[in-house]
Amino acid sequence: MKKISIGIIGAGVVGGGVLEIFKKHSASIARRVGARVEISAVCDVSSRKVPARYRDVYVSDWRKIAADSGIDLVVELIGGYEPAATIILKSLASGKNVVTANKAVLAARWGDVFTAARRYSKLVYFEAAVGGAIPVVQALNEGLAANKITSISGILNGTSNYMLTAMHNDNISFASALKNAQLAGFAEADPSCDVKGIDTANKLAILTSIAAGAQVKLRDVSVEGIEDVSSVDVACLKNEFGRVIKLIGKTDIRPDGAIDITVRPRVISPSHPFGNVNWEYNAAMISGDSAGDLMFYGKGAGRLPAASAVVSDIIFLSRQIVSKTAGLMPYVEYDPSKKVKILDSSSRDGYYYLRFTVADKPGVLAKIAAALAFRGVSIASVYQNERPSQKSPSGAAVIIITHKAKESDLRSALDAIAGLRIVRKKTVVYPMEE
Amino acid sequence: MKKISIGIIGAGVVGGGVLEIFKKHSASIARRVGARVEISAVCDVSSRKVPARYRDVYVSDWRKIAADSGIDLVVELIGGYEPAATIILKSLASGKNVVTANKAVLAARWGDVFTAARRYSKLVYFEAAVGGAIPVVQALNEGLAANKITSISGILNGTSNYMLTAMHNDNISFASALKNAQLAGFAEADPSCDVKGIDTANKLAILTSIAAGAQVKLRDVSVEGIEDVSSVDVACLKNEFGRVIKLIGKTDIRPDGAIDITVRPRVISPSHPFGNVNWEYNAAMISGDSAGDLMFYGKGAGRLPAASAVVSDIIFLSRQIVSKTAGLMPYVEYDPSKKVKILDSSSRDGYYYLRFTVADKPGVLAKIAAALAFRGVSIASVYQNERPSQKSPSGAAVIIITHKAKESDLRSALDAIAGLRIVRKKTVVYPMEE
Repeated sequence: MKKISIGIIGAGVVGGGVLEIFKKHSASIARRVGARVEISAVCDVSSRKVPARYRDVYVSDWRKIAADSGIDLVVELIGGYEPAATIILKSLASGKNVVTANKAVLAARWGDVFTAARRYSKLVYFEAAVGGAIPVVQALNEGLAANKITSISGILNGTSNYMLTAMHNDNISFASALKNAQLAGFAEADPSCDVKGIDTANKLAILTSIAAGAQVKLRDVSVEGIEDVSSVDVACLKNEFGRVIKLIGKTDIRPDGAIDITVRPRVISPSHPFGNVNWEYNAAMISGDSAGDLMFYGKGAGRLPAASAVVSDIIFLSRQIVSKTAGLMPYVEYDPSKKVKILDSSSRDGYYYLRFTVADKPGVLAKIAAALAFRGVSIASVYQNERPSQKSPSGAAVIIITHKAKESDLRSALDAIAGLRIVRKKTVVYPMEE
Repeated sequence: MKKISIGIIGAGVVGGGVLEIFKKHSASIARRVGARVEISAVCDVSSRKVPARYRDVYVSDWRKIAADSGIDLVVELIGGYEPAATIILKSLASGKNVVTANKAVLAARWGDVFTAARRYSKLVYFEAAVGGAIPVVQALNEGLAANKITSISGILNGTSNYMLTAMHNDNISFASALKNAQLAGFAEADPSCDVKGIDTANKLAILTSIAAGAQVKLRDVSVEGIEDVSSVDVACLKNEFGRVIKLIGKTDIRPDGAIDITVRPRVISPSHPFGNVNWEYNAAMISGDSAGDLMFYGKGAGRLPAASAVVSDIIFLSRQIVSKTAGLMPYVEYDPSKKVKILDSSSRDGYYYLRFTVADKPGVLAKIAAALAFRGVSIASVYQNERPSQKSPSGAAVIIITHKAKESDLRSALDAIAGLRIVRKKTVVYPMEE
């Protein structure tokens, strides 16, 4: 029986999950691959992270794995930019196929990675980089291959979705929600990449690159995170409108190929397909010209869900190594000469939720209303819910829901209002889906 | 450039959609396959169904396509058992790969089809047989390859889901809902296969066969359709409980491999993942030991959604023909020697919605309640909503919601009640999901 040799670099949370699945399902993996799949090397900064049964294949330096001619497939699971990017590129250059869960490297260096893959006729699979256990990369890249993709949207970050769900369900503050997410193991000690929307933007850039057949980078994405979402917003939208705030990544691809790509908090109804996507769950909605709207939903975070995606990649890449076809055809379409036009998103129309934090003085609301009216932004509802006896030194919250307005007009009005020196903090602006 | 020759058998709704997608996207299909993909023959009972641009490749007898040594890939889209099954088997025997959307043939002859595929080293792809545009076959078979599948459930029939949605939203009768579905193009003139749950059962048998790696046939499925769902049920559940009835196919795979597989109407809450799956949409939920719960949602019916799945299959099968690897490894795991144990579903516990149609006489409710109590089935709520002045000649509806009960105990009680001659019609029994 043929043998496939795997080198795993990174024995942390996901890497540990991969080793666990291999222990549990090695017979069925071999049956599906049509070969014995052997973990021939496991690399991490310390051998203590490596389970006892893999200690004899422990390697302290990843370069040994990338250079080992006996290894067929390198699995990069260390995350971050470097040395992960170098590991992927060196492994390809030395004739190995690669499985990675690294969204940061792919979103930053899509072109470099897939140019190298093509040059060396190797494959890079990356299902675990987006949506955890959800096979959304495969669905977009293969299951929808007959379609022109017109839009992609998703709740793609488990940490921020966990926090927003906790704020909504339990009426707690942003700070408490973050603490809860950390205690539950769904937020890292430094959650900034998740909370600021960067992680979502990386994943959206990857999905959009697949759909476009060209490189879309993190810096092409207009990103706003959930740092400014307060319990005031969550409670007002829940109690007055029966609505919910979610951090949503959204790409629209126009018929001419130009792309509108944003990550921002959005207000949706509970009957929206994402309305019941809570806690660490992720969801992606993809629209194709023939297939219509499709949604994929599942666990976006956690040890075994991500490992499930990595091992599926290993199985299907190994099958191609066995049949000597890995790399004959590229996995994703990527045309280095194709430049994607990124649209300025402020030309969009929509309904908006606005929260102003204002000085508690007479006439403030009149000034805001006048500035909005001057730019043609009309007000549908206003909420200001302070008790008469109480004045907050940090300012009062004035919440306004607009009628349909152009975001560029709204932004001009907000600039004008900022000039009036009545606003104490950044004004929050969240689009409301109909 | 290499060429792949396709023979399409069946130019009806889905076949027409396939030809339309080929017309629109032939360049991107060729790019993805790495070869020119040519439709070399189109067969139907009449040439009038075939679009003008394919008239010169029209063939009236499918046997010509199955025997044509120039054809690489046969696409069977005529539906029904015969001659579809023979087309698939003869095409494999004459060295062709096959794409089919035929759930009836697969659910009846899974073993024959995949035994033939293996014998002749050819592939049979069938994404369009389940869930329309949703790439659920690929997700289950490939994306979740690293998992032991523990359960599969789904709303898999567009017709019955369209009807139940219409009954729920518009408070209309079963007959009106059927008429609406027919007018909207989502129910055939003879809808019995859809309404009786057979279509759902075929699709569930296919998904279960993939997960089990063995044949699970239509006759293994315990099937109940929506024929007995009345507007009384829909209205009571909506107004008294805020709940909704859906036709759900459900497979549980026990750790020992034994399978509980049923299709029946079930009562769910709107916050259930299937709660917002309405009209012609389908959804499938799959649970794996590592991946956890995943859901896939999209259009389960319609010309282009199904054609989207067929063309994706054609693309990925053609890639393997180009690289001469099609059939080196089987597409699905199928072990002819593996016999699946099918469980008797009546041993399950649950909450149940019951509707009795009874003679309108004193003491009837007391007798029903006593018979239920005698078998240990305890009552949570009772609804009987007839005006005092009004007696229906066809009998009165008595609705009972049980506390947790064993279905086998419930069935014994219903048998006893049937013996009392107070019930005028079949009593409906729908499990309520928590």
